[in-house]
Amino acid sequence: MMITGEALIGGLAVKGSEGGQRAFNPATLQYLEPEFHTVGAAQIDLACRLAGAAFDSYRATSDEQRAAFLDAIGEQIMELGEALLERVMAETGLPRARVEGERGRTVGQLQLFANLLREGSWSDLRIDPALPQRQPPRPDLRMRLIGVGPVAVFAASNFPLAFSVAGGDTASALAAGCPVVLKAHWAHPGTSELVGRAIVKAAAICGMPAGVFALLSGSGNTFGAALVAHPAIQAVGFTGSRGGGTALMAVAAARPQPIPVYAEMSSINPVFLLPQALAARAEEIAAGFAASLTMGVGQLCTNPGLVLALDGPDLERFKQAAALALEGGAAGTMLTPGIAENFLGGVHRLADHADVATLALAPQQGGKGAPALFSTSGAAFLARQELAEEVFGPASLVVACRDLAELRQVAESLEGQLTATLQLEPGDYDAARGLLPVLERRVGRILANGFPTGVEVCNAMVHGGPFPATSDGRSTSVGTAAIARFLRPVCYQNLPEALLPAALRDDKLAGAWRRVEGELTCE
Amino acid sequence: MMITGEALIGGLAVKGSEGGQRAFNPATLQYLEPEFHTVGAAQIDLACRLAGAAFDSYRATSDEQRAAFLDAIGEQIMELGEALLERVMAETGLPRARVEGERGRTVGQLQLFANLLREGSWSDLRIDPALPQRQPPRPDLRMRLIGVGPVAVFAASNFPLAFSVAGGDTASALAAGCPVVLKAHWAHPGTSELVGRAIVKAAAICGMPAGVFALLSGSGNTFGAALVAHPAIQAVGFTGSRGGGTALMAVAAARPQPIPVYAEMSSINPVFLLPQALAARAEEIAAGFAASLTMGVGQLCTNPGLVLALDGPDLERFKQAAALALEGGAAGTMLTPGIAENFLGGVHRLADHADVATLALAPQQGGKGAPALFSTSGAAFLARQELAEEVFGPASLVVACRDLAELRQVAESLEGQLTATLQLEPGDYDAARGLLPVLERRVGRILANGFPTGVEVCNAMVHGGPFPATSDGRSTSVGTAAIARFLRPVCYQNLPEALLPAALRDDKLAGAWRRVEGELTCE
Repeated sequence: MMITGEALIGGLAVKGSEGGQRAFNPATLQYLEPEFHTVGAAQIDLACRLAGAAFDSYRATSDEQRAAFLDAIGEQIMELGEALLERVMAETGLPRARVEGERGRTVGQLQLFANLLREGSWSDLRIDPALPQRQPPRPDLRMRLIGVGPVAVFAASNFPLAFSVAGGDTASALAAGCPVVLKAHWAHPGTSELVGRAIVKAAAICGMPAGVFALLSGSGNTFGAALVAHPAIQAVGFTGSRGGGTALMAVAAARPQPIPVYAEMSSINPVFLLPQALAARAEEIAAGFAASLTMGVGQLCTNPGLVLALDGPDLERFKQAAALALEGGAAGTMLTPGIAENFLGGVHRLADHADVATLALAPQQGGKGAPALFSTSGAAFLARQELAEEVFGPASLVVACRDLAELRQVAESLEGQLTATLQLEPGDYDAARGLLPVLERRVGRILANGFPTGVEVCNAMVHGGPFPATSDGRSTSVGTAAIARFLRPVCYQNLPEALLPAALRDDKLAGAWRRVEGELTCE
Repeated sequence: MMITGEALIGGLAVKGSEGGQRAFNPATLQYLEPEFHTVGAAQIDLACRLAGAAFDSYRATSDEQRAAFLDAIGEQIMELGEALLERVMAETGLPRARVEGERGRTVGQLQLFANLLREGSWSDLRIDPALPQRQPPRPDLRMRLIGVGPVAVFAASNFPLAFSVAGGDTASALAAGCPVVLKAHWAHPGTSELVGRAIVKAAAICGMPAGVFALLSGSGNTFGAALVAHPAIQAVGFTGSRGGGTALMAVAAARPQPIPVYAEMSSINPVFLLPQALAARAEEIAAGFAASLTMGVGQLCTNPGLVLALDGPDLERFKQAAALALEGGAAGTMLTPGIAENFLGGVHRLADHADVATLALAPQQGGKGAPALFSTSGAAFLARQELAEEVFGPASLVVACRDLAELRQVAESLEGQLTATLQLEPGDYDAARGLLPVLERRVGRILANGFPTGVEVCNAMVHGGPFPATSDGRSTSVGTAAIARFLRPVCYQNLPEALLPAALRDDKLAGAWRRVEGELTCE
């Protein structure tokens, strides 16, 4: 499949009406052909209107039809073969194994949502049958979830496949019956076009309406604001920076009709090294920590950017071992020059901070990120808000606390996070019991004796958490529960059988998961 | 139980630190004793901080303990006996039968949420067991829903029991494990204090933490903004005007940590009279419509404020019959002088509108609302945005459309609504099929051959709908699904059995509803 630099609107490739830019290879520092033209306001409007026009027919498809569509997208992505892998590597500097793994994850994620549709309980069918003898009589009441409407998805830079064009936001929105208008990330436009064309081809094969998916290229706040402000758009999925996410939240809230925004934004993922675990395994934990911190050159939302422990000789053992492991680490190519520059700025802010000691600082190079480790005290961390700011890349800060009370106080001071990790031994369970309620209030996922990187795509996953980890702590952007973001309930009262949605008709209910008078059943 | 005019904070009655005001009897136009003092900023802060402090211990209670608490609240409300009924009647002008019915509904609603807790599937337990042999190995992942944190609830004026102190918002928040800080509605402060004391007594009997519930009296935007802006508050429930709801949405979105607002605000509840139904039953539909429009002096969120039909002799029959039924209707006492004044203003705006004809206009009296019926054309309705504004009270507008295409166009022009009603016969099904997708996108509940007033409290109910019917179209404020507003997911990865929440431990899972590898089971 050719990369032409075009946008995809209404199932057709169209040249963006605005200026063009080429992709950049962060490893070779060279620009890549072809030029990608930014779409103009009229093209954004067209894509959104087509999505609005496609909504009713798309959501009227059966669960099996949408499942087959998701499967077909996965197949079309695999059909792209080597051309896709090479373009991803060229545009991101990510190694082949990671790209192949991420492709597998992306296709697996599409299959997971296809299976969810086939299982059926996602639509939360509810039946309260008529009670004609009751005074007053109760009507027949039936409920189901339907899609909220067209969803604007903003692709992330750090997962060019799994959080991009056919990533989790797109898969869950399409599963929910919502057309998707996707804003490609300018860091991997060719990858985006290839995957976008795979979706368009799958839509054609499956007979889906042409407006079900659009791929728009462009960048800048004006572009994003125009998309989020469009009246046809009914929800937003976003993965990126806190600044970008909060800007979209403001646009969505200021609309004549406000809409929900699901932005996954910012997290420093605290790792608590409890005393017995530190005493027993300081060096082992340091090795695991260093591996997690440097995975993907630290460009993961769940990167362990904060380590919390009690001050003392065991923490010194951890610091030394971690510093040793990190200092030897080579600088890795970062996804974009901008990310590398921001990382370098963050590292220097910490290195120059009066209350921070530098434990490890491998030589930094332009466009690359080398591991860095710093330390501070609990008291300084509590006093200095800026020490809790995310540094996106392989840098972390160790906070040495005076005692468990201060450790807990530091935990209470944290903003919302995607994850929190406890390194613990049975002797630490009492300390952990004191921390767990604090963490439950603050994070989406709590791990024991592991590291937060590596997000399993499954049913029980929560990749979410209170603000600013996400804009909406009631949601997850990974795993099957992500579909709930794009659904809303509709109740039907005394509707004649002939007019009820198929799923709610008496003859279709047998064997389907549903709640009858509140009782779950699939009889 | 005495009414003292005090607020309830930390389980204690405390006098508000600001100026006082007395309740008003809208039927006798007399003030009622005692004086209720508005709480000051320090008291709001205290109530919110106590709620924050109570959150961890309250959410750690078992489902059965919270169910027993909800049951106890219902029992304590019934214990208030005649004193409660008389105070409600005096403060609202509502007749005894309505007040008794509403008390039954309120207690039944508390029991419904108690039953929901006992059934257990509300917490959406999910288990994806470890796969140690897989490459890479999958950890053990378990998910549950927990409460979002303390909820600020703003009571409504028009349901002094069912949407007030112990109404649906309070019941669903307490069920979810969230402490409630309740802002009483100034239209029924004595009712609020009585019910608030019942909750405080139930909390004491059940051993709940003192911060689990607070009742604050006060009014004005400053009061509401201080409550919603308080850092301990994590969600807001509101029933009231569009202006009030959108003001709270703005405060919530502007917080350093934005929080969700569930505001039920504004709806004109279109009723579609399809041609065959109108031909067959014009007079019968008119009688049912007039009864629905005047129920509770029209002060219901689901009041049928808009009637849509094709122009012609059958619609004339409907108009005449409806006008006749309404013209004879007596003016009823409205809940507050302000509501009566706004209603009168709305009626006059329609009566004086160049594009509107008056069909029925019973003499209006100060403090009372008499039924009013108006008509206009589809073209005028489409051109005049102000004709779609809610007039809260027993007034409705008939829109005569040229043909089915214009009827559908009018439907497409409507903002989000709580309900839409179809009066139809089998010969109308094709027309209904054209309207249903439009309505599904716009409303929370679609009714056939009934009227929208009378909201059943059950599992399948949706009392919600896209903005501005509510601030969040993904939610309902009536029925068991209302609990979802106050819940968020937390995932536990490889947590030792000793530290897992009880509900997720292997030995507690048997018999509980849960999703294992995505499959629902209660084996």
